[in-house]
Amino acid sequence: MEPAEMIIPRTGIGLDVHAYAPEDQPCPLWLGGLLWPGERGLAGHSDGDPVAHAAADALFSAAGLGDLGTHFGTDRPEFAGAAGTTLLAEAARIVRAAGFEIGNIAVQFVANRPKFGPRREESQQVLSDAADAPVSVTATTSDHLGFTGRGEGISAVATALVYPRPHLPIS
Amino acid sequence: MEPAEMIIPRTGIGLDVHAYAPEDQPCPLWLGGLLWPGERGLAGHSDGDPVAHAAADALFSAAGLGDLGTHFGTDRPEFAGAAGTTLLAEAARIVRAAGFEIGNIAVQFVANRPKFGPRREESQQVLSDAADAPVSVTATTSDHLGFTGRGEGISAVATALVYPRPHLPIS
Amino acid sequence: MEPAEMIIPRTGIGLDVHAYAPEDQPCPLWLGGLLWPGERGLAGHSDGDPVAHAAADALFSAAGLGDLGTHFGTDRPEFAGAAGTTLLAEAARIVRAAGFEIGNIAVQFVANRPKFGPRREESQQVLSDAADAPVSVTATTSDHLGFTGRGEGISAVATALVYPRPHLPIS
Repeated sequence: MEPAEMIIPRTGIGLDVHAYAPEDQPCPLWLGGLLWPGERGLAGHSDGDPVAHAAADALFSAAGLGDLGTHFGTDRPEFAGAAGTTLLAEAARIVRAAGFEIGNIAVQFVANRPKFGPRREESQQVLSDAADAPVSVTATTSDHLGFTGRGEGISAVATALVYPRPHLPIS
Repeated sequence: MEPAEMIIPRTGIGLDVHAYAPEDQPCPLWLGGLLWPGERGLAGHSDGDPVAHAAADALFSAAGLGDLGTHFGTDRPEFAGAAGTTLLAEAARIVRAAGFEIGNIAVQFVANRPKFGPRREESQQVLSDAADAPVSVTATTSDHLGFTGRGEGISAVATALVYPRPHLPIS
Repeated sequence: MEPAEMIIPRTGIGLDVHAYAPEDQPCPLWLGGLLWPGERGLAGHSDGDPVAHAAADALFSAAGLGDLGTHFGTDRPEFAGAAGTTLLAEAARIVRAAGFEIGNIAVQFVANRPKFGPRREESQQVLSDAADAPVSVTATTSDHLGFTGRGEGISAVATALVYPRPHLPIS
């Protein structure tokens, strides 16, 4: 078998960080595609969801199609203020339109709160629906160190696996 | 060949951070599954080994099975104080029980010390034995920047690749 | 089909951080394999390119062959001051010599500047030529948080996918 005939997947990586909104400009927290009532929100031109943004960036990275700034920058004002799930769904559409299938996306965020476990399944479902592919979401803390430990913001890192769409044999 | 018939691997990601134990509460350093005599230890309910913990989290992430908190939280007190290699072995068991094979795990930690190179092979062997799969471990510094650069703690990031166990043909 | 007969890729991860050179010791900025005229440079024994270094480390990590320190340490003085692209090319050569093919490498860096979009394609081409494999490069910021947000340095994180070179059937 020639390597050229194998289906070789491609890996990608995406990071995203959002600072908490200033105390005097409170906004809702969107994280992992979910609204978290009563939690301090993150600043951002969009909904500031670092989990959805890192997932989208990992998809673009795996496909070699640039990043969030390439696709949702100031020249596409229709995405200003868009939900993270909207950006992720659009990223998945763009990656598929370029000839890739999406294997899976995995995201981990770093934050002192909110308590994520009870809503993990809900978050994974919302993001998987947006990408139309499996998205796993996990959470950890930075043990009180760094900007996440000091509660200044939330970071997320994601990997994604895509692969070129197989060509169907001519029968 | 239909995509559904291909074996598509899944990628996962895991981060872990542990702060150094306070000066007046010294403890041994466990890192990469090894004990490092003479080095300042990391705080943690378990042995505080960020390399083993990130590896376990990456496995769970790849398989979509939650994270360390899901499996080794306060409702499973038998894992309180467990060695990182014990957690990694249990994570591998859980992932395999869910129908996945483990391709490999790769971890990089960020710390000013200890000097890792001379014990890399030993660390990789201990962690690979725990996971019963290849685990690579690498080290870097953050060039004196951030909490790792200031010597406040050690961080680690891991990726893992798992794939659904192939169904054997009925012969 | 036995798993042992499948070609299972391996994933790897690489991080790199470089601090900006002191104001009184200015040097040119190398980032993503490119020279950025007019930008403040990063300190480093080599050209300090965190994108190229993270890419090389991810390759080594995926192949289980150690890290930059293993291969380009003080016992190989010919690499002191080497360009990041030189290190990446040598890493790719070492990984291939060990029996692996390189699927792809994906890198994301975190920095307030320079503005990367206009030169992304150029950067990707230079790094892909060095590795003789697809390298995608993306950029983000840390929203003014942490050492990258304060403009103290630039960090990069990379993933790579390698796979064992298929054995050709004896014909």
